[in-house]
Amino acid sequence: MNVKEKGVRHERELAEELWERGWAVVRGPASGSGARKRFQPDIVAARDGVIVAFEVKRVSDPSKPLYINKRQVTGLLEWARRAGGRAFIAVRIPGVGWRFHDAEGLEDTGGGSLKISKPSSGLKLIELEETLLPSSRKLDYYFTRGQT
Amino acid sequence: MNVKEKGVRHERELAEELWERGWAVVRGPASGSGARKRFQPDIVAARDGVIVAFEVKRVSDPSKPLYINKRQVTGLLEWARRAGGRAFIAVRIPGVGWRFHDAEGLEDTGGGSLKISKPSSGLKLIELEETLLPSSRKLDYYFTRGQT
Repeated sequence: MNVKEKGVRHERELAEELWERGWAVVRGPASGSGARKRFQPDIVAARDGVIVAFEVKRVSDPSKPLYINKRQVTGLLEWARRAGGRAFIAVRIPGVGWRFHDAEGLEDTGGGSLKISKPSSGLKLIELEETLLPSSRKLDYYFTRGQT
Repeated sequence: MNVKEKGVRHERELAEELWERGWAVVRGPASGSGARKRFQPDIVAARDGVIVAFEVKRVSDPSKPLYINKRQVTGLLEWARRAGGRAFIAVRIPGVGWRFHDAEGLEDTGGGSLKISKPSSGLKLIELEETLLPSSRKLDYYFTRGQT
């Protein structure tokens, strides 16, 4: 399996997990399709009026910082601004799982990249839901807590 | 250009028009990708917290009814229900343009299909926006009215 196939497999995996947890989910088309004119996130998820745009990344060594193309993040943030939603970088870490970092306020290295110093320090999926969904959803949290 | 390429071209065209009008837009992946486990709309658009899922269709003869697979519509409605949004069938009619039909309340033919008797009777894009967006957006309507 090459790098691109691996990326697609991870995107699908996250999309499926979000769907199973009750989100409406759509994966964007492969990078490049129409991407010149307008930015398209890797995944868009929505639930009860809450919209989230994700850029999906993976790291092999969670102790090393992750650098993300600044223009990609700018596109993601513009998408979320239009939608009236939020933007997150979803980082897949082997042996750890998914960690989510708010795309807003990432560290600017000054060289065309933004930096996530500690990919593993991001929110877990269940914590992301806690952050995004209204308090009426908090009950779910306690019921599903042991599962993620 | 074959039928599939034409479909993709029309989807892109609508996605671009929505983007130009201020919507955040994402085109779903080609039919079939992950579609077995979970439904993915052809296009998802969002603006200021309003979410719309589109199934894109085209007709060559606008005087003939359009039949849509019932399971497709059920999937689209389920997607919109989860998202807390709305679902529309976007119909491309040559010489007329786009017309939008609420996926809710389509006529059931009883044979696994839902029917749009008069594709050309749907909402224009600007009328769709009028229906979906809060009244604070109505000003846009008057400014852009002549353009569509």
